[in-house]
Amino acid sequence: MSFIVMKFGGSSVGTPERMKRVAQRIIDRQQEGNDIVVVVSAMGDTTDDLIDQSKQLNPNPPQREMDMLLTVGEQISIALLSMTIQEMGAKAMSFTGWQAGMKTNNAHGKAKITDIQPDSVLNAVKQGHIAIVAGFQGVSEEGEITTLGRGGSDTTAVAMAAAMKADICEIYTDVDGVYSTDPRVVKNARKLDEISYDEMLELANLGAAVLHPRAVEYAKHYNVKLVVRSSFTGNEGTCVKEDAVMEQGIVVRGIAFDKNVTRISILGVQDIPGVLAGVFEALAENGIDVDIIVQSFVQDGKADFSFTISSEDKQKALNVIEGIRSKVSYDQASSEEGLVKVSIVGAGMVSNPGVAAKMFSTISSVGVSIKMVSTSEIKCSCVIDSASLQDVIQALHTAYGLDAEEKAFVGGPSERR
Amino acid sequence: MSFIVMKFGGSSVGTPERMKRVAQRIIDRQQEGNDIVVVVSAMGDTTDDLIDQSKQLNPNPPQREMDMLLTVGEQISIALLSMTIQEMGAKAMSFTGWQAGMKTNNAHGKAKITDIQPDSVLNAVKQGHIAIVAGFQGVSEEGEITTLGRGGSDTTAVAMAAAMKADICEIYTDVDGVYSTDPRVVKNARKLDEISYDEMLELANLGAAVLHPRAVEYAKHYNVKLVVRSSFTGNEGTCVKEDAVMEQGIVVRGIAFDKNVTRISILGVQDIPGVLAGVFEALAENGIDVDIIVQSFVQDGKADFSFTISSEDKQKALNVIEGIRSKVSYDQASSEEGLVKVSIVGAGMVSNPGVAAKMFSTISSVGVSIKMVSTSEIKCSCVIDSASLQDVIQALHTAYGLDAEEKAFVGGPSERR
Repeated sequence: MSFIVMKFGGSSVGTPERMKRVAQRIIDRQQEGNDIVVVVSAMGDTTDDLIDQSKQLNPNPPQREMDMLLTVGEQISIALLSMTIQEMGAKAMSFTGWQAGMKTNNAHGKAKITDIQPDSVLNAVKQGHIAIVAGFQGVSEEGEITTLGRGGSDTTAVAMAAAMKADICEIYTDVDGVYSTDPRVVKNARKLDEISYDEMLELANLGAAVLHPRAVEYAKHYNVKLVVRSSFTGNEGTCVKEDAVMEQGIVVRGIAFDKNVTRISILGVQDIPGVLAGVFEALAENGIDVDIIVQSFVQDGKADFSFTISSEDKQKALNVIEGIRSKVSYDQASSEEGLVKVSIVGAGMVSNPGVAAKMFSTISSVGVSIKMVSTSEIKCSCVIDSASLQDVIQALHTAYGLDAEEKAFVGGPSERR
Repeated sequence: MSFIVMKFGGSSVGTPERMKRVAQRIIDRQQEGNDIVVVVSAMGDTTDDLIDQSKQLNPNPPQREMDMLLTVGEQISIALLSMTIQEMGAKAMSFTGWQAGMKTNNAHGKAKITDIQPDSVLNAVKQGHIAIVAGFQGVSEEGEITTLGRGGSDTTAVAMAAAMKADICEIYTDVDGVYSTDPRVVKNARKLDEISYDEMLELANLGAAVLHPRAVEYAKHYNVKLVVRSSFTGNEGTCVKEDAVMEQGIVVRGIAFDKNVTRISILGVQDIPGVLAGVFEALAENGIDVDIIVQSFVQDGKADFSFTISSEDKQKALNVIEGIRSKVSYDQASSEEGLVKVSIVGAGMVSNPGVAAKMFSTISSVGVSIKMVSTSEIKCSCVIDSASLQDVIQALHTAYGLDAEEKAFVGGPSERR
């Protein structure tokens, strides 16, 4: 008998049929002898419909009222799921964020969890109920209704699991688990049985949409055992935990990529102390996230440097750089699109020299040149032309011994809320 | 400068255009120098849509989860109304029932208000905000979300006004105010300037849908000055208060009717003590409300009696009476449909003898016979054939001097939630 938190995304409960299937799945899990807390997101299109309604009345709706509006999405889900479970003969009780004791700060739209007081939920579970908690929402010290922002429902599930000392937090999604790389790109991508928090974090940050990085961080911090599995099949899924076992001879766990990369180059920058900081502070103040930064050698008191950003920030970034010309002297700024970042991730890299070198040689073996490089203890990333993405990923997947015997399950787009 | 509670029903905010019109009206009222708290219902079809969704998943949804589900309707309204007001340049803050301190008992679906702690709402008002409170909902001591049932939003408005010691509670609806009788039946029905709580209560109980009786009772108990007025026009409306002034020579304030009347007769009942109680207890246990009761003289140890009920309860009532044959001996039971109850209401009746006699003579003057009669201190009701309704109401309206000079505004169906 275990204490299990089960989290379902919006598309898993988007129709009456899906709602019933999820309810049955939850009841089955309880009848195996487990205590069950369920965390659920807003159903399918509810959130988008509410946003549309608000835009008709206020094109820039205040965030406090958006939180008031959008939290009804999860409240509808929990009520309907509880009714469905009760109709099928099991006991269930739903809880909004504030009822579940999910305390946050007052940052509407992107609130941080400050404390969890899950007494009501635990009481319901003790009395044999399946407790159903609204994801994504909380309440501040002042009694304000808040939302957790991106990745909110995953984070709710992990945080509830941590606060209640649950044995497992199961994240149900529309893919079978975490894959060695995107199965839509590499046909023999392999589903991983286990992965460590750090590896999962790198993969999540690198765009593997199956789990939100924030939820993984929370799980790592509180040592919550996560299982990513499919809402639609009974397959085992992938276990995310501290001491994930590496398979024999496998150093790289997975390969991720980000298609949304633009490189900005600033040439002939006057090399005085604080110049670099000035540029990146200006970008940060304008909400532009910078990823890889490369600075060339200084010649004649001038330096070139380049960095990558999300493609949608390109124009904004160029404007910011133009705007600081009075403070930072440089010859010219330019941008390059059509790039991707490919990353290999594996906790074993740190103790296996030559892993990065193998990446560079593999990429060059398919005739592709590397434009930028960035490394960390468990990751190595290369920026390349997007046209070569498929060839490079496939070659790396084979080179690091990740190819599966059979064709992998190909999932649809994941839920991230 | 006054402290005003303004209550708007669901149809008043059912479209973006109506929402904007209501928002403008609220802002205007604030700019006249008043402190404003708004109570609002769920928009148009929201509630019905949510009920439809629930029925697909559970034909008999548990009331706790229905409260969880249906309270989102008002939460959507308050968020959108607050956004709309802010877009128009005024300050606004929305509050759910629990945030507004609306404490109730735990009777899901028909909770009773036990206490109100409106500190958050009052603070918002003090800071110059228009405070927007979700009607119809509250929270129990145990932190359960509850709904107040029928008349809930009117009751929320009156209760908030009482707790905050507001000067006026304005109920905005789709008619101009309270009329001397239904303007759809009598063309020269007159809009009343004032009416007392007791008179309003009788009219409300008799089917004048403009205000829910529960809200009127609450207003009477806490002496809250109510004003019923139109969402769509600037007209003055009707003031409901303790010391409503009677116009010169007018004793009857209004004429109400109930079309939904069935008479049940039980003939030849063995007249032993407790028989009458046995019949009506059985009806009450089955949820059947009995209105007028008439017992004939006892002859040969047997009595006849008859009573009126809502027509939809006819078959259920006959079944109950058949079911108690073993305990109550009677010759036969029968029912008569196609009846209406016509009532005259006026606080002055008690001190003006002959008011009831005038009613009987007026009805007989148009050739209609009276089947049953019931009187109270401020009301006299007669049951007649429904075919004569129009003639009787018109004759009474003229006889009691209620006819207006001009044709009255004819309103649509009212909101009662």
